[in-house]
Amino acid sequence: MMIAPFSTLEEFTAQLNNQSMPDEAATKAAMARNGVLTKPPAALGRLEDIAIWYAGWRGQAAPKVTAPQVLVFAGNHGVVAQGVSAFPAEVTAQMVGNFAAGGAAINQLCAVAGASLEVIALDLDTPTQDFTTAPALSDEDLVKALQAGWNAVDPSADLLVTGEMGIGNTTSAAAIATALFGGAAADWAGRGTGVDDAGLARKAEVIEKGVALHAVSSGLDVLRCLGGREIAAMAGAMVRARSLRIPVILDGFICTAAAACLYKINPVALDHCIAGHLSDESAHGRLLEKLGKHPLLDLGLRLGEGSGGALAINIVKAALACHSGMATFDQAGVSTE
Amino acid sequence: MMIAPFSTLEEFTAQLNNQSMPDEAATKAAMARNGVLTKPPAALGRLEDIAIWYAGWRGQAAPKVTAPQVLVFAGNHGVVAQGVSAFPAEVTAQMVGNFAAGGAAINQLCAVAGASLEVIALDLDTPTQDFTTAPALSDEDLVKALQAGWNAVDPSADLLVTGEMGIGNTTSAAAIATALFGGAAADWAGRGTGVDDAGLARKAEVIEKGVALHAVSSGLDVLRCLGGREIAAMAGAMVRARSLRIPVILDGFICTAAAACLYKINPVALDHCIAGHLSDESAHGRLLEKLGKHPLLDLGLRLGEGSGGALAINIVKAALACHSGMATFDQAGVSTE
Repeated sequence: MMIAPFSTLEEFTAQLNNQSMPDEAATKAAMARNGVLTKPPAALGRLEDIAIWYAGWRGQAAPKVTAPQVLVFAGNHGVVAQGVSAFPAEVTAQMVGNFAAGGAAINQLCAVAGASLEVIALDLDTPTQDFTTAPALSDEDLVKALQAGWNAVDPSADLLVTGEMGIGNTTSAAAIATALFGGAAADWAGRGTGVDDAGLARKAEVIEKGVALHAVSSGLDVLRCLGGREIAAMAGAMVRARSLRIPVILDGFICTAAAACLYKINPVALDHCIAGHLSDESAHGRLLEKLGKHPLLDLGLRLGEGSGGALAINIVKAALACHSGMATFDQAGVSTE
Repeated sequence: MMIAPFSTLEEFTAQLNNQSMPDEAATKAAMARNGVLTKPPAALGRLEDIAIWYAGWRGQAAPKVTAPQVLVFAGNHGVVAQGVSAFPAEVTAQMVGNFAAGGAAINQLCAVAGASLEVIALDLDTPTQDFTTAPALSDEDLVKALQAGWNAVDPSADLLVTGEMGIGNTTSAAAIATALFGGAAADWAGRGTGVDDAGLARKAEVIEKGVALHAVSSGLDVLRCLGGREIAAMAGAMVRARSLRIPVILDGFICTAAAACLYKINPVALDHCIAGHLSDESAHGRLLEKLGKHPLLDLGLRLGEGSGGALAINIVKAALACHSGMATFDQAGVSTE
């Protein structure tokens, strides 16, 4: 297994501040190719933008997507003691079992997308600390979770979706958003797996309390004090994907909260990431706006597990299939005027 | 080859007014199944609605999509003599050649979706009449085109996308929309393959002239006077799919105009159809609203060829893969409270 090239938060930050960038020559070559394919100019809409963006990151004028990887990280959250979730904490481990048995939504979505799926359970027997009373993670916990994410990325993948499972983690994600971007906790809190009005109000109070207790705003402090292992692991995987020039499809609210911590450290850290979908979790759209990301899909999903990101894989595949597989006007003998 | 069971427009209308309906038992069984799958209630959003809708049409509680078919009909339009397109009429036949050679966008999109593709060129050497001076099609032409669409549907398909190629056909589609739903032609005319402002103004004038000349408003009269062979063929295929209980994904503006003619005859005629995407052709959204359809995708495509519909195939596939492949709470031993 790859050993992550950092063992402290400072070293992780250094990785984040020494990022690879898209290949300019490949980007230009892809733009030129896009201009001569057998279609009216811009007629494939966002598929054209995706193809050029992807080509730049892969450093090839006409690549295809052949090896997408979906990573699902699972973690447990001490804050569930505050009654913030509609499901009991045991469900995290039960769903990990369901992933292993092939019975979850993400298993079916990966099959449709032709994606490999790896599920990584992170110390489920040791939930994070309840963030209303203590930092969720120690420095050491956080480094370990970031490393787990970093090490999980398959270097031969050519597209990555990071997903999560963790009862209580919409509370953690909303707390992260509140700490990073301000505003009332109630504006960032959503119904998660389906809490009622009273549960939603409790959730907002819990978030306010945690955010006030820690009073942090830097990306890693927020991730450590209010995050969780699966959230940190997604962030670690995103940074590793960047180093490998593997484009990333973000999933929903929790995944986007992980991304937001990186963005707060370095605003270009998400240039290799695209928003797979707009979740039905109420604050997801606002969080994506903060990151300047426009979602590919808007189908009312709010499941997590990487499901929305996995659903978007075929859109990216289709974009590159068109870009790299279509004939040019010259090749096809089609008139342009 | 299947011979269409109609040889007059009256007989076609009779088919349209004797429609199969979704299987109620299958719909109920699918709803029940959806309620016990390992996910929070409604967490798969529109995928859940699609799965239940599809199950009802297929008459099975837990079907999968394994044999999608994409049909692309091509036709030429006499109205191009009025200077309404950015591309010359020869491009219709040239693009049919490109489809046959595998070089068009739709070829790549079908490959990604695992769909079969059939392209049917309809009398390309005999364009429709210029609708500013005469009805586009005779009764006989129209019946023949409807039959071509009917006969092209593969009875073993389990999902159908109807697409088109025809230089000039956004003008025809906008004329259809104007005649069916009223309003100014300028509100229904769009840039098609990319006409400039002057071209767009000319297009609106041409539409006004044609609509005024024929003064028709019934579905088949509008299709005959202002439509085209490929547009009629799409309508014929939609009706055939209904008789076979094959759900249909509508493509863009032109496909939706074909569907609108059926809707005008019988508002339940499109119950087996879902809107694949919102095209960038300016009036598509308004036309979908008239039909009560909410598009699955919104990616700025305006290519035709069935491209937006084909891109949506994997969304429907994913919906059914989840619905029919996921474990139930009982099967997976996951707690619900």
